[in-house]
Amino acid sequence: MGEFELIERHFVRPQRALRHAALGPGDDCALLRVAAGQQLAVSSDMLVEGRHFLSTVAPDRLGHKALAVNLSDLAACGAEPLGCTLALALPRADEPFVAALAQGLFALADRHGIELIGGDLTAGPLNLCITVMGQVPPGQALLRSGARAGDTLWVSGCLGDARLALEVFRGRLALAGTDFEAVRRAMECPEPRVALGLTLRGLASSAIDLSDGLLGDLGHVLRRSGVGARVELAALPRSAVLAAQAPAMQNECLLRGGDDYELLFTAAPTAKARVLQAAAQSGVAVSAIGHITAQPGLLLVGDDGREQSVSALGFDHFG
Amino acid sequence: MGEFELIERHFVRPQRALRHAALGPGDDCALLRVAAGQQLAVSSDMLVEGRHFLSTVAPDRLGHKALAVNLSDLAACGAEPLGCTLALALPRADEPFVAALAQGLFALADRHGIELIGGDLTAGPLNLCITVMGQVPPGQALLRSGARAGDTLWVSGCLGDARLALEVFRGRLALAGTDFEAVRRAMECPEPRVALGLTLRGLASSAIDLSDGLLGDLGHVLRRSGVGARVELAALPRSAVLAAQAPAMQNECLLRGGDDYELLFTAAPTAKARVLQAAAQSGVAVSAIGHITAQPGLLLVGDDGREQSVSALGFDHFG
Repeated sequence: MGEFELIERHFVRPQRALRHAALGPGDDCALLRVAAGQQLAVSSDMLVEGRHFLSTVAPDRLGHKALAVNLSDLAACGAEPLGCTLALALPRADEPFVAALAQGLFALADRHGIELIGGDLTAGPLNLCITVMGQVPPGQALLRSGARAGDTLWVSGCLGDARLALEVFRGRLALAGTDFEAVRRAMECPEPRVALGLTLRGLASSAIDLSDGLLGDLGHVLRRSGVGARVELAALPRSAVLAAQAPAMQNECLLRGGDDYELLFTAAPTAKARVLQAAAQSGVAVSAIGHITAQPGLLLVGDDGREQSVSALGFDHFG
Repeated sequence: MGEFELIERHFVRPQRALRHAALGPGDDCALLRVAAGQQLAVSSDMLVEGRHFLSTVAPDRLGHKALAVNLSDLAACGAEPLGCTLALALPRADEPFVAALAQGLFALADRHGIELIGGDLTAGPLNLCITVMGQVPPGQALLRSGARAGDTLWVSGCLGDARLALEVFRGRLALAGTDFEAVRRAMECPEPRVALGLTLRGLASSAIDLSDGLLGDLGHVLRRSGVGARVELAALPRSAVLAAQAPAMQNECLLRGGDDYELLFTAAPTAKARVLQAAAQSGVAVSAIGHITAQPGLLLVGDDGREQSVSALGFDHFG
């Protein structure tokens, strides 16, 4: 099966199914309607086999994850998703793989009411590059630069499960079947917090999505905002599976895990009730994990109450 | 040097240098302004080493080409370019390579007044994925589906030089130094016909950019428009270097060459003077190479006046 037939069969839907796109895949460009007066929010993430996913991942989960990590960027920005493009390099024209990948991608896209509006399919080492587009009214996008001293530091969901699953794949840890399936799901099927991001517009002072580990991503917020933070280790939200691990493993997964795709955001302390209401409305738990300080740097408060200054390093692809 | 430092040093420009972007690289999303009442035109192309470019290409030319092939899609759509994202997988953090690649990309971006608004940098087999965004008033985009029987078939520039260069790299042909440099330049530094695309709004009935070879890309237009075409072989525009080759080589390069990035478009015969004026205004030559027929199929008229029916097959990555 050739390139064009694969695209036609698995990635192109009837034009009438498109709400946001004036023109879907199949021409030189796709055409997207952006609501009057809104700005376009754009993010692009590339997933490379062996770097961002293991060869053992099921293709439907891979399709899900490639879109999820991009939607997570829109969520962190408080943007309403509209559409995406997918550029895909495949070692060979493996139709069952492509079919399952498309199925996983479309299932998530449909849940968020967005459309695959175009892309590219080529031969090459397995690589997925999705560019996602959304809209946000001018001045309302959540940025990394808005954290202010005194703000409460919040995080959605649980942290560290994806990293725990990776430790199992690396052979450093063994988990019972259902526990492994739960953390593997966190690694392979992250849920982008789009609804939460939308409800945080006008409420959060800054936001970022956690992709490179809490310390690294918090570091981006602190540098861009010109502030510091004090984080309570005991307050970091974790699953029962992670909570059952040795303390050192828990801390590693929570602080430097990566692949969490939860939102880390700040808000004025007076906004606490509204933040909890926004979270409830979005169907996701949020936890207050510390606060922003005027003094730059990152202080971690251990379970014993002792403060420790840490360097804010997350994952670096060439680090 | 790490991922974030490479990005900061080579891909991020001061926010004040951005005209179209309300927010450039460095946050979860970039923010782009789309003019009131216009639609967003989007295209995404992925370039894989050994497939879309040879390892011998100079990195500044690679940066140029990765953006050029995307701008060419906007040109074919008649859209005004606004910005692009670059997702880049690199085998290693090779700073001179990255610096030259960014320089080539920005040189072309600057000539078209567009901005690199975001992207991704990761380790992996060399792969460049650019998504380009432009704007076009509703109903004015040039589509593949608008060709009508009787329309004149036009092409910009010269065809086949990129393929001729590839034949040299493949060792099937030898060319003198300056001749080789000229066709190599066509292969490595295509000029996207953005200005021509803009002047063809409201004038061309259909358009496509030539990336997979004339026959294949013309085939897309014919299928989408439900028409056929009659093409005069002798009318296909070619450089002096290509014209000096054996007839079989000329035809192969002209018809199935690929990587031309010229515009193939149709217009009513009555629009001839306006087409020539649009071309002159855009600083690029255009040639009438045949016409659209009501009868589906593609007829090639040879130098001897004989008609030959051909199958419209272009390059297929899995064909």
